[in-house]
Amino acid sequence: MSAPIRIGVFDSGIGGLSVLRHLITELPEVHYIYLGDTARVPYGNKSVATIAHYAAQSATFLRSKGVDMIVVACNTVSSAALDIVEAIAHVPVVGMIEPAARAALELTRTRRIGVIGTRATIESDAYTLALYTHGGSERLTVVQHACPLLVALAEEGWLAHPATLAIIEEYLRPLLDETVDTIILGCTHFPLLADAIGQVAPVTLVDPGYWATRHVQRMLGSHATSEHRLPRTARVEYYVTDVPNNFAAVARQFLGFDIGQPHRLSLEEITPIVTQ
Amino acid sequence: MSAPIRIGVFDSGIGGLSVLRHLITELPEVHYIYLGDTARVPYGNKSVATIAHYAAQSATFLRSKGVDMIVVACNTVSSAALDIVEAIAHVPVVGMIEPAARAALELTRTRRIGVIGTRATIESDAYTLALYTHGGSERLTVVQHACPLLVALAEEGWLAHPATLAIIEEYLRPLLDETVDTIILGCTHFPLLADAIGQVAPVTLVDPGYWATRHVQRMLGSHATSEHRLPRTARVEYYVTDVPNNFAAVARQFLGFDIGQPHRLSLEEITPIVTQ
Repeated sequence: MSAPIRIGVFDSGIGGLSVLRHLITELPEVHYIYLGDTARVPYGNKSVATIAHYAAQSATFLRSKGVDMIVVACNTVSSAALDIVEAIAHVPVVGMIEPAARAALELTRTRRIGVIGTRATIESDAYTLALYTHGGSERLTVVQHACPLLVALAEEGWLAHPATLAIIEEYLRPLLDETVDTIILGCTHFPLLADAIGQVAPVTLVDPGYWATRHVQRMLGSHATSEHRLPRTARVEYYVTDVPNNFAAVARQFLGFDIGQPHRLSLEEITPIVTQ
Repeated sequence: MSAPIRIGVFDSGIGGLSVLRHLITELPEVHYIYLGDTARVPYGNKSVATIAHYAAQSATFLRSKGVDMIVVACNTVSSAALDIVEAIAHVPVVGMIEPAARAALELTRTRRIGVIGTRATIESDAYTLALYTHGGSERLTVVQHACPLLVALAEEGWLAHPATLAIIEEYLRPLLDETVDTIILGCTHFPLLADAIGQVAPVTLVDPGYWATRHVQRMLGSHATSEHRLPRTARVEYYVTDVPNNFAAVARQFLGFDIGQPHRLSLEEITPIVTQ
């Protein structure tokens, strides 16, 4: 019996747990090391320089843990700083953008695709670029919109509140005006709001965490599990840079089960590594 | 002519600019040094340990700038870590809590006071403690509620949106059920929403930034200006740890005028100072 594959997963905070959930479900035999930078969350309203700096620190930490692969479980980092993570990782790196863009292109029937995400993700144009790159020569329409309030609503757990629906309606209007038939949920918080988003927009929703997991499966030559259930005992080491009071409750919302007591990393432990 | 007084003002990000605005208006002759930790904003959902660590770094930086006084222009830091700032500052420190609590006690007629703020501010019970400490022996009722979504709404500029009103209604219900006649706006973002809050709750609203400014005036022996207008040329040095794309627009919303190009501090410049 060979040692289990080790996959490092990192995010700006706890949203990446919605990606980890897919990974655990589809690839329960893997040993996961999860890092959430909860002391500096969120990244979505920050500059590319700062996001890249933080991402480099997280990648360096995971590399020190001897992982065989890194999944960037954060759309903001995937769109703004994937190249830096790849340069540091020395192992294969899977981001959110490419798998989700390819899935959206397969799923759309009208070739009119919407993208929602944080301000940083949308301003990077990463999804638009990936869609046009892989979209072939036929006419393709992409409409994107930054939805920063949805992050706060998901963390607050207001998943079906009338105010949430009103905000989603306002944010999605430009996408629905352009009659998109597929929307990429380009932030790890948004799958929690999938029901509310589906109520406002009866279109195909693409969860990048799911499609990135499928991509990881292909890379590992693994088959989809037949059960699609969370295994009872996933082997995960959790590291976070801060443990606020409501951490356990919010983590449960994203992961679907209790995380237990995560390891607390001080910023000093990850900060000096990439300072030159 | 003596050198102008130098006041250091710091916040987790840009919300403190709503406090700086009061200071500039009432005390235009002072030289201000403002520090916003925009690379790690917000603090309101983080642990006391992390908030204290960040606050210590900001206080150390301002001390290195030779300020004569520090205004903690952040309710979260004022409620969770004022003692650490005082221990580091070596100059007088003015926080948001005490001046606002004393003002609320003067303004209430029914002695039923509400407090809203970030999760960290409310969980600290700092306002409740200050109100009961200074409230005398007569019966006093304090009702507090954490309103994290209001921070995101203020930054997004949705100051009068129907969704904003719906969210405020939900947050204020426990306060209005207890028929408070005065509400402390215990987060520097909330004064931007004062009109919307006033629409939902026809009560006296207490802006801690204003009352902290009055307190600073008294400490300096200065009289209130007769004009109450923003001076044309305020002398302010702005330092921030990150400059995201929308920084200028959001700063203008809080300050009322353009901030110009702030100095960008790298986290390394403020991080090692308090590492032991």
